[in-house]
Amino acid sequence: MPVVEGTVKEVLNKTEWVAIVTSGEKSHLVGTWGDYIRELGIEGDKIVIPAGHYEKTEENLRMNNKLQLLIASKGVKGSHGPGQGCIIEGEGKIETDGETVEKVRERFEWVRGALIIEVMADKAQL
Amino acid sequence: MPVVEGTVKEVLNKTEWVAIVTSGEKSHLVGTWGDYIRELGIEGDKIVIPAGHYEKTEENLRMNNKLQLLIASKGVKGSHGPGQGCIIEGEGKIETDGETVEKVRERFEWVRGALIIEVMADKAQL
Repeated sequence: MPVVEGTVKEVLNKTEWVAIVTSGEKSHLVGTWGDYIRELGIEGDKIVIPAGHYEKTEENLRMNNKLQLLIASKGVKGSHGPGQGCIIEGEGKIETDGETVEKVRERFEWVRGALIIEVMADKAQL
Repeated sequence: MPVVEGTVKEVLNKTEWVAIVTSGEKSHLVGTWGDYIRELGIEGDKIVIPAGHYEKTEENLRMNNKLQLLIASKGVKGSHGPGQGCIIEGEGKIETDGETVEKVRERFEWVRGALIIEVMADKAQL
């Protein structure tokens, strides 16, 4: 059974943007647009994010491949707030060549690579 | 001169939600709704966020009061993407009584306190 289904899938389909947190020596926060992820398609529990910079994110992932995403939308009915948020936990790596990166580059010519995330768990937020 | 002006103010006025990252022994990611912050009003460089849970955030801030927020909106013209994001850096503390908390509780009766942030810097993202 995939993790990315039900509420988390619904919020992924609506979130305007995505926060991405990695932890190395210091935690690092970056973002991406929800449309970028959706345009690349979410297959099973794999999320692919076009990587323009993300140098510090890459450095952190080499030390600790665990990461967290936060997504949210008022377009999804919330459990108690005016919308629904979700924390997504997973493992990530940045690839700069190979088949996935080529596919990402066809759509986003400005990328230096792709952040590829395997989702392990999610929990409701907000 | 306040830090919260120009582009960062524009994005704060539009962001649907806000990501909040604190760093203690482990980094911790939570969120809030943009409307919550706007309803409480942003005065100068002080951002007030209603705190329902945020127990781990509070624990982290006691070890390290530095935090980061990410905000973003497609409603603000971006420097190169389809919208604008901003990282906000600041110092935070959670208060559970006092004048500010009483004001927050008048509007949000479910709070256990308030996350009070003094903004120190911001940078464009996305």
